[in-house]
Parts: sequence; structure tokens; C-alpha cells
Amino acid sequence: MSSQFKYAVVGAGAVGSYYGAKLAHGGGHDVHFLMRSDLGAVKLGGLTVRSKDGDFHIAKVNAYGSAAEIGPCDVVLIALKTTANDVLAQVIPPLLHKETMLLTLQNGLGNEEWLAKNFGAERVLGGLCFVCLNRVAPGVIEHFGHGTLSIGEFHGPPQTRTARIVQDFRDSGIDARAVQNLITERWRKLVWNIPFNGLGIAAHANTEEVLRDENLHALAINLMRETITAADKLGHNIPASFADEQIERSWPMGPYRSSSQIDFEMGREVEVESIWGEPLRQATRANTDVPRLEMLYALIKKLATKS
Amino acid sequence: MSSQFKYAVVGAGAVGSYYGAKLAHGGGHDVHFLMRSDLGAVKLGGLTVRSKDGDFHIAKVNAYGSAAEIGPCDVVLIALKTTANDVLAQVIPPLLHKETMLLTLQNGLGNEEWLAKNFGAERVLGGLCFVCLNRVAPGVIEHFGHGTLSIGEFHGPPQTRTARIVQDFRDSGIDARAVQNLITERWRKLVWNIPFNGLGIAAHANTEEVLRDENLHALAINLMRETITAADKLGHNIPASFADEQIERSWPMGPYRSSSQIDFEMGREVEVESIWGEPLRQATRANTDVPRLEMLYALIKKLATKS
Repeated sequence: MSSQFKYAVVGAGAVGSYYGAKLAHGGGHDVHFLMRSDLGAVKLGGLTVRSKDGDFHIAKVNAYGSAAEIGPCDVVLIALKTTANDVLAQVIPPLLHKETMLLTLQNGLGNEEWLAKNFGAERVLGGLCFVCLNRVAPGVIEHFGHGTLSIGEFHGPPQTRTARIVQDFRDSGIDARAVQNLITERWRKLVWNIPFNGLGIAAHANTEEVLRDENLHALAINLMRETITAADKLGHNIPASFADEQIERSWPMGPYRSSSQIDFEMGREVEVESIWGEPLRQATRANTDVPRLEMLYALIKKLATKS
Repeated sequence: MSSQFKYAVVGAGAVGSYYGAKLAHGGGHDVHFLMRSDLGAVKLGGLTVRSKDGDFHIAKVNAYGSAAEIGPCDVVLIALKTTANDVLAQVIPPLLHKETMLLTLQNGLGNEEWLAKNFGAERVLGGLCFVCLNRVAPGVIEHFGHGTLSIGEFHGPPQTRTARIVQDFRDSGIDARAVQNLITERWRKLVWNIPFNGLGIAAHANTEEVLRDENLHALAINLMRETITAADKLGHNIPASFADEQIERSWPMGPYRSSSQIDFEMGREVEVESIWGEPLRQATRANTDVPRLEMLYALIKKLATKS
């Protein structure tokens, strides 16, 4: 059965808009969107999702320009770019009651830790989105494929509350599941993101170009191995064969450009710290030698920083 | 005493034009320039060198469009970009007599080997140029500083002929010297070129930006260490302290852009194989682990290849 949770969505980019719209439209849930630049357009024109699973439009969206207007919620979906985490310190407090859950759908490592430090670890959950989305205009989201959402507790195995959120997403048409160890899942996702998002920037190469170039292909595998080794040292066991699986599942993607590559090419901020910086720092603290990750971080940090 | 050597200069870029012009003007030597795109301009307007050591102009330059017009010479200075080595197979034969020496002033590794394979190892010498030059227009060279030329035999220590060439350059106002082991000197030069030329492309960073960026600075030192280790494995001993010396001598260069970075930014061919590819292949054959050099090569090869 679905919950009666009141949801807030912070961040109206592709991820927040898509999952929020699915909850509201597909599941009939009570969803409130906190927006900034898209607020006017969405109040006027609603939210549109174009998808091969079927287009839909929400004419009247609960969209707000401040968290105070939304007030306390049961679940806050956090879908801001990790480069904007500072904003959350101001935005989240009005959304909290005693048991409010903070579910970060953000990329990479360090986001749960940040929320835990600022609002208490017991509130924090995380979700990993495996989805191809693009925000083509304010309030207009294109959904190219997939959509799996893996949700877990920051600390410990899934609880009743985890299962209820998963069920809400499933009722809304999202292929959601609960995961036993969220941070292990984050490392598994990084095994793909570190090389492919990284070489999208450092080599200006899309997924297919990385796979077809002998040297970049080998480099991608070596970056995956470094990531798996670092994860292992940190207590997250990922089998070595996982690297080969990631290569195999990348071929059907064709000339796919990761969100980081698109951000970089559009001159937008790149999530340097959550995707490369924080994994590197954790690997270094665990005394793992990750020369290629270290180099990738140095290059991307320089390339993506406006001078 | 100066020799009566007849010199040919193949390649009328900054390096060939500068050292050829010094030999002709400063030393009064018999120098013949083989040119392609600049031929008309130089025949008409001569060669101009603008230098803090004093400007000079050669009004009547022995400039030719074909090697056959030049005929056999005693010394052929080879100053083509290494990416154009294929051309040499046609260009050099008309310049040869029985004892013609081939002195390559080209960058990186593999050029002496290529000449030896094609024309016999006994003919081959190499020179390393430590000089800041820019060809600002056809026949117009700007000389910013330095100019040291280290000349050695491809095989073995300096011979009488080596000393005669060195003397010709010295008489022409060039700070030339003979080196005991040419290939060791090439590796020493690579200790600088591999990181700084490389990060000029891969990180879009000039010398000063590399030095001032904490992560790139550390990366440059690690690339130097890999280069020194590879050289050592190949029998070319370079002390570990050499890396620190290279960092120290780079600070006064300011925001210097290497020739590779300029080539890359201008959309010209980059000498990928001689500066990174061949050192990597030699390191790999010597079972030396050079993950950063390997990664740098993969990135630069992709970035510098027109797609």
C-alpha cells in the first residue's frame, strides 16, 4: 500500500523534476517542488515529461520559490547538483519535522555524510538513479530510457520507512528497489562514472569513443580496477569481474555523453568533488594507490574551474 | 678552427631557420635551406632573426624547393616536425655523399633510430636544443632566450667530427657542446617535456599554472619520477634530485606555453609519438610501471587527433 507521505523535491533539474512528476502523476502523491529559475515557467506551463513509456503533463504543479511556503514534509528528495550543497543549509530546515527523511538522489560520494553532519544521520537515506534524462526547457524533461532507483539507508539495512518509500515509487511506475548497503552501491556506480564521466571531460570522448579507442578503453578498465580496489579497502566488496560487466553494458549506449561531459561542454559547473575528489580522498585515507584517479581529478579540477 | 662543412637544413620552422641562420650569418658557413611553404617569402625577403642578442637579417638566402638542387652535403640538420618524418625518406637521399652526417634536432625519442634504420647508424648524430623560439611569419624568427645546443653521436662518445660541428656552432655564436651519451640527454630533456608539454595539452595549463596548482604540481613531479625510473631501467642514470631541479628552473619561465601546447591550441599536429608514445613503449618494453605517462599518452593522442 502507498504511504500518505508528503514529499518535497529540492532542485528542479532533470532528476528532481522527473522523479517528482512520476510520484505526483503516476502515484497521485502529495509532491511539492522547490524551484528557483524554472518557477515562473512551471507555474504557468506545468511540468511535461516526454518519454518512450508515454508522455504526460501536469498542468497544476505545487511549485514554490521558498521552503517556508512548503513547510514540514515527510520525505525531502534532494536533487540539487552537489556543487550547490551550500544552499541546502538554508533550504532544508523549514522542511523538517521530527521524523522528516532526507533522501539524496545526488551523484557520487559525500552527500549523505554532508546531510548527516548538518541534520543528523538518522534522517538520511540515499538513492541511486540509473536513468537517461535531459531537461530540454524549463519544466520540460525528456526521458530517454531506464529509470531504476536504488534506495538505501545511510546507516544500516532497509527499514520499514525505506520499504514505504520504495513502494511509493513503484506505485508511481518507477522501477525502485531497496538496497542493503547504500554506500557499496555508490561505489559500484562510481566504477562506471569515474572513467566514463571523467574521460568525457579529460579526453572529450563519449562512451563509444572511449570504448573504440584502444588506449582509452584500457585506461577506462584501469580506472575501474583502481575504483574497485579502493572500494574493497574501504569494506565494499565488488568483484573484479564487475569492470568487464560495465564495459559490456556500455556498448549498447552508443555515443552517449555523460551528464558531466554535457555540463563541461555547456560551461556549467561539474560535480568534481563528489565524483572524483571524495572517492580519491577516501582511497588515499585507506592507503590505496590510485594514480590514474588522482591524475584524472587533477586534470578535471583544472579543466572545469573557470579561470 | 671552423670546418669547411657544407650544411643543409631540412625544415624551415623556427629551429631550422634559427640555427641555420646563425651558422650562415654568425659563422659564415656554407648553408643551404630546403624549404616548402616559406620558399617564396624567403627568396624574396630573406631570413630575419629578432633576438635580444641582436637582430640580424640575411638578404640572400640559399633557399631551395628540392633536395636535388642542393646536392650532397657534409652535414644535414634535420629540423622537421617528427610528425613529418615520412617525408625524409624522399628528401634525404639527394643530400648524401659517402660520409654525410645526419644531425637531427628533432624532439623526443626515436628520430635517431628512424634515420639509422633508413640511412645507416654511422651517419647519425643528434642535437638537443634548449631555446625559446617562435616563427612569427615566413622567414621571420623571434628568439626569446637561451640557445644551448647539446650534440652527440647516436652510437658512442663524441668523435672528431662531433667536435668539428660543435666548433662550427660555437664560432657562429651558439652555446654548443658535445655530450657523451646522446640518448641519456634525450631522456633528461623528456623529464621536463613529458609533464610540461603534456599538461599544456591535457590540462590546458601553461608552466606557471602547472606549478601553482597543487594537484598538477604533484602530478608533474610524479610524471618526472616515472620518466626517471624508466630511463634508469633503460640504462640512463638520472639522479632523483633532477626532478626537483626541473621544477626549480621552471619557475622563472613564468606563464610559458610549450611548443606542443601552442601546436595543439593552433590546431597543428602535435608530436605525440616522439614525446610520449616512444618513451612509453620503451618503458613498457623495460617492464617499468608508468601509469601516469600511459594515461597522458592516451589522453593526448585522443585530444590531438583530428576526428
